[in-house]
Formats: sequence, C-alpha cells, structure tokens
Amino acid sequence: MENVGAVQTKGYSQQELKELKDFYLDSLLGDTLPFWLKEGVDREHGGYLLMRDADGSLIDDDKSVWFQGRFATILGMLYNEYEQRNEWLEAAKAGVDFLKKHCVDTDGRMFFMMTREGKPLRKRRYFFSEAFAISAFAQVAKASGDEQLAQEARDLFRKCMSYYDGEISLEPKFTDERPGKGIGVPMIFLNVAQQLVDTVGCSYAESCIDRFIDEMRAFVKDDIACVMEVLSPADDIIDHIAERTCNPGHAIEAAWFILHESIRRRGDDELQALGLKMLDYMWERGWDKEHGGILYFVDPTGKPVQEYWHDMKFWWPQCETIIATLMAYQLTGDEKYAQWHQMIHEYTHRVFPDKEHGEWFGYFHRDGVLANRAKGNHFKGPFHLPRMQWVCYKLLSDQ
Amino acid sequence: MENVGAVQTKGYSQQELKELKDFYLDSLLGDTLPFWLKEGVDREHGGYLLMRDADGSLIDDDKSVWFQGRFATILGMLYNEYEQRNEWLEAAKAGVDFLKKHCVDTDGRMFFMMTREGKPLRKRRYFFSEAFAISAFAQVAKASGDEQLAQEARDLFRKCMSYYDGEISLEPKFTDERPGKGIGVPMIFLNVAQQLVDTVGCSYAESCIDRFIDEMRAFVKDDIACVMEVLSPADDIIDHIAERTCNPGHAIEAAWFILHESIRRRGDDELQALGLKMLDYMWERGWDKEHGGILYFVDPTGKPVQEYWHDMKFWWPQCETIIATLMAYQLTGDEKYAQWHQMIHEYTHRVFPDKEHGEWFGYFHRDGVLANRAKGNHFKGPFHLPRMQWVCYKLLSDQ
Repeated sequence: MENVGAVQTKGYSQQELKELKDFYLDSLLGDTLPFWLKEGVDREHGGYLLMRDADGSLIDDDKSVWFQGRFATILGMLYNEYEQRNEWLEAAKAGVDFLKKHCVDTDGRMFFMMTREGKPLRKRRYFFSEAFAISAFAQVAKASGDEQLAQEARDLFRKCMSYYDGEISLEPKFTDERPGKGIGVPMIFLNVAQQLVDTVGCSYAESCIDRFIDEMRAFVKDDIACVMEVLSPADDIIDHIAERTCNPGHAIEAAWFILHESIRRRGDDELQALGLKMLDYMWERGWDKEHGGILYFVDPTGKPVQEYWHDMKFWWPQCETIIATLMAYQLTGDEKYAQWHQMIHEYTHRVFPDKEHGEWFGYFHRDGVLANRAKGNHFKGPFHLPRMQWVCYKLLSDQ
Repeated sequence: MENVGAVQTKGYSQQELKELKDFYLDSLLGDTLPFWLKEGVDREHGGYLLMRDADGSLIDDDKSVWFQGRFATILGMLYNEYEQRNEWLEAAKAGVDFLKKHCVDTDGRMFFMMTREGKPLRKRRYFFSEAFAISAFAQVAKASGDEQLAQEARDLFRKCMSYYDGEISLEPKFTDERPGKGIGVPMIFLNVAQQLVDTVGCSYAESCIDRFIDEMRAFVKDDIACVMEVLSPADDIIDHIAERTCNPGHAIEAAWFILHESIRRRGDDELQALGLKMLDYMWERGWDKEHGGILYFVDPTGKPVQEYWHDMKFWWPQCETIIATLMAYQLTGDEKYAQWHQMIHEYTHRVFPDKEHGEWFGYFHRDGVLANRAKGNHFKGPFHLPRMQWVCYKLLSDQ
C-alpha cells in the first residue's frame, strides 16, 4: 500500500486490490478484534464491557444495549462467513444471552442502557436496540443452528414492523404539529432484513425489502442533489433547522445498503443507479475539501445547522464511505470511485488509528486534532470499524 | 483598555475599571441590543424571532420557549435598572404575552419549542421553560406595575417547587436504578428566586433561597477540589461516565449566583467563601492553559467524557466566567481575580465578537477556529451575553 496516499488517476491494479484485501483482513484479525476481545466479554455477569479508554482500561461498566447486539452481530457474522472459531461463537452468545436475559422490558420493548449486572438504566422511544438484537439473534442462530433463536429473531422483526406501522404506538418526542419521518428506520431495517433473510431465512422480512427501499428513495432529492434525513409524511423537505440537517455519512451508509441489495439480486441496474446517485450526492456535500474526511452534518441550503460539532470528523462516517466507494468501484470499475476510495482510505488511516494501543480513536476536530481519546463509550464500540474491515475484505475477495 | 491583553500582576487601576465599565455598557447598548432588537420582535405573531445567521438573516422561524422568557427578562431588567425606554418595555411584553397566550399546556406545564404562530412542537421533562418565564413575568410586572402578572410569577414559582419536591411528578428520563440529582435546578431557581424577590417581592421565594444554596453546597467536593454537576440522593459522587462529567462554566455561573447572594445580604463571609471556592476549583479545572478560554466539559478523574465536543469553546461559559472573576475581584480586591478577569475578558473579546455583523459567534473549536456561525439557534440567543455586559457594568458602577 505504498502509493495509497497519492492521488490516483486510474483504477486500482490487481496488485493494489490484493494488498488492500490483505490490509483489511490483517487489521480486523490482528488489531480490531484482539483489542475488543481481550477483556470485552464480561465473564462474571455476561454481555460486554466496552466503554474503554485509549489503552483499553475501563471507563465505565455500564452496558449499551445497542452494543450487546452489535458486537454479537459482528462476531456471529465472522463465525458464519470467515472461520468457525469457537472463541467468536462463545463471545457472540454472551451478548445474545445478556440481551435475552436482561434487556427486554415487561411491555416487550427493549432498554437502551443497563448496569453491569443487567438492571435497566434507560429506555428510549426508538427501536434500534431491537434492530441490533435481531441481527445478533439471526447471526448467532445460524452459527449455532439454534432454530428457536432464529424464530425469536423473526418474531422480533415482526414486532418492530408493528412499531414502524404504528400498530403498537410508542410515546412521541414531538407533538403532532409538524409530523416528520426519518430515513434511519427504513435503512437500518433494510440491513436487518438482508441479514435475517441471508442467515436464517424470513419470507416476511424479504417481502419488506422493496418497501424499505421505496421509502428511502423518497429521501433522495434530485432537484438539489441531496439525500435528506427527514421528510414530511408527503415526502416534502421541511424547511426548519433540524429537518434541513443532512448527515452525509449516514446517507452514504444507506447508499451501500442499496448497492448491496443490487449485489444480492445479482445485478439490478435501477438499484445500482440509485445507490451510486446517493453516494455521488453526499460525497460532494460531505467530503471536506480543505482537510479531507467526511463532515458530520451539512445543511443543503448553506445555512448554519443546530449542532456545533457538525464539522468534526467521527470514525464511523469514514468507515461507511470506505465501504461505499469500494463497493461502487467494484460494481462499476469507474475510476472516479477508485480515486474517492483512495482519498477516504488514506485520510482515515492517516488520522484515526491509535498507533500506541491499537484500534481507532473516534473523534477528531475538523482539522484532524484529536478531541476525545475514548475507544468505547455509549456510541462507539466494535461495530462500524470491524464491519468496514470485513465488508471490504469480502468485496475484494469476491472479485 | 490598551493593556487588557497583557498579563496583569496587580489589581486594576481606577482608570482601567472606568474603561471596563464604559466598554461593557457601550457593547450592550451599541452592539448586542441593536442586533437583536432590529428584527427580533415578531410584529405579526408576537414573541421573538431569534434564530439568526451571522448577518442577522432568519435561519428558522420557530420560537424557543426558553428564549421568549430569557429575552423578556433581559429587556425588563434593563428597563427596571438602567433606563425606562418604552421600546424595551414593549419588546419585553411581546415575549411575556406570547408565553402566556401560547406556551402553557393543558396540564399547566410549559412547552419547549413553538411554531412562529404559537403552536406547540415539543415539550420536555424539565421545567426550565417555567424558570425563565417566572423571571420574565417578574421583571415585566415590576416594569409595568402589573400586580396580576406579579402574582402569576409567584404562583408559577410555587408550582415549580411542587415539581421540584416531586409533589407533581414529571415523567422520568431514566429508571429508578441509579437515582441522581443535578446542580442545575437549585442554581437556576436560586437566580429566579433572587429576581422574583428583588422585583415584585415574594416571601415564599425568599424562604427558599437558603435551601437552594444548601443543596448546591453538597455539589462542592473539597477532597477533590471540584464542583460536580450530578450527585446521588445521598450527596455522593456517582462513578459513571455521564455523572462524573463536570461543566466548569455552569459551576462558575453557580459561583457568582452565590457571590451575588452574599452581596444581596450586604456581606456574608460564609457565602462569599463558598462562591470563591467554587470559582477557584473550576477555574483551575476549566481554564484551557494551552489555548485560553473555559472548556465545556471535564472529568475530574481525567478519564474521557462521553461528549466529543467537550473541549470546544462556547460563548456562555466565557460570559459567566467574566462575571464571576470581576465579582470576586470587586468583593475581595484580590489581584488573582483581576488577573483571571483580564485573561478571560481578553481571550473572549479576541475570539468571539463578529467584527463584520456585530454580536458574538457562539461556537469555536478548542484552538479558536470558528465552528458554527449562527448568532441564534435553539440554545443561543440574547441572554448570557447581554446579561454579562449588564451585570459587569453594574458591578463597576457600584464601587
């Protein structure tokens, strides 16, 4: 990877692609996983202890429900798709068992944050805890051949669709005065449905995929070349500060979920064009031409956004953009995507890795100055980084 | 103010104090108020339109309930304490009328965000909308001699105490697993009570002041020289990431509320010592020795905090520190406080003012690079800056 920092004017050579493939796998197996597996599984109370300082020492022993599901998903996925390592399956089960034993409230909804022992600290209105639990259940069910767990994954998916359709109502954060909908739910559940179908099978989830994509399509606004995060129920842009705010890394993640669907269907020109368009729009809006990297929030009208940390560089939008640009290149052979991939890969691997203790820092100021040295907290943990390394390795293996 | 950028090794001279006094008043009357009064009052629907870009153009026409109360408070205070300008009283009444007409829900609780026309968008669990409404009602009641409005202020204060004491329960954000309490409620209501008593009189609010201060005192931890934001019900530090997080600007604001109470009592050595101690502790923890200014969040154990924007420089912690250091100097004559005041005054006035369009920017990265150019949004508006300018002017006039 000697020339990965240089500006590429042509596509990658076969040799370069081979080196990239080895790099992603080596980083995953030699750095990311060892960092988290070293002390990440709680041998005493089950689940994971993931809130970690730069050196891996524990900052807090609370347990994020999202991350019980997310880490179990990654571990189950690697067991299913790379190698049947018992250590991975045992660790994946630790997360799933903790989720099932402690993280479901009496009303069937899942909590958001637990004590180390498994007592609930906080529950939120959203059902993303459930989304990541479905993925974890599905991956571990496939890995262990546990049909009962597979059915729990399918049942939980169906329950989430009831929340989604409003059949089971969740307490709203806002009044009904200005109704809106986000791209987040259809995009996350597109990914969940893909995993559920591809691991243990679920005809109901399969039947939802077109619906999720159709709903996401409405957020892609060709007239302003932008993927919105929020729309009115009638699919219009809402001209207020919060609703105007776009999240390029999130939209680019949505783009590769759709590109992945075109791959699942062994070629779908319309979906491929949709995913590429979303990537094109949000690379243009999100790439920081001054310092490199993907900005967190942008307003398509150029007005200030509400958040003040909007121009910071977080690890996860960079990860999602590394995946999306590589997937676009693999699908199209278009040199533009090779160049974008090289730009984001080089920027990210120059800025984010912790050369002293391994794994990545998560939070930099716009200009690349480290802002927060935590490796794990309520929102950062073993998910976006290992998923990027694994998905990129697989993309480069499939060619 | 030629030498205000230099490191001061002695107290201020009388000439320097005179120049500072003129500077604060001129900035308030010649810059801050004209920026907000130019188009801030909504002549069509009442209340204020305060979400503004750097040049004063409107970003969003939604109305923050906090800021209807906060701007009305500032305007009423200036009318009562500086000069009876009709423009100020009329503008103050516009905020109070909007609050009374639109911002109270059927259960008596106030909303958090309204449309321009006065329809509710969001309600929160906290009762800070109410706190700022009490101050606004009290200041405008004094300004206009409206005894009915004065009584509404007193009644609303009493209702808030019922929320505070749990007699009227508010929906909790967290489970009961790890109960905690914040310094925010007693400190804000200390300030509200002081204003209510000093404008229209309220023996009940007066009787609450000692209680608020006693509750705040528990957050001051001498063993680690720190003012905490959150404690357990038994006044212990909670050793988790969110509960460890300290907010130096907030604690320094609390410090000057207590110093102000010692002035209200025409000298109270114990309160003065408490306020000075809080300032000393949090100046040491909050002052950025590398770039200057007060950091947003710090963890007293040195561990990472949850937030990633913790080392950014916001306008309001600087404003509160300008007040607190000047008040400490005026009370003690201690050269240390003159030096601190000079450091924060010089830093802030070098970094924050918008030399092109007037008023201040609100959000800078740690090193002083502008992050967000909005003058007004959901959380920034005409409050901390004009209050700082007015309180500092008054402090320097009283000597």
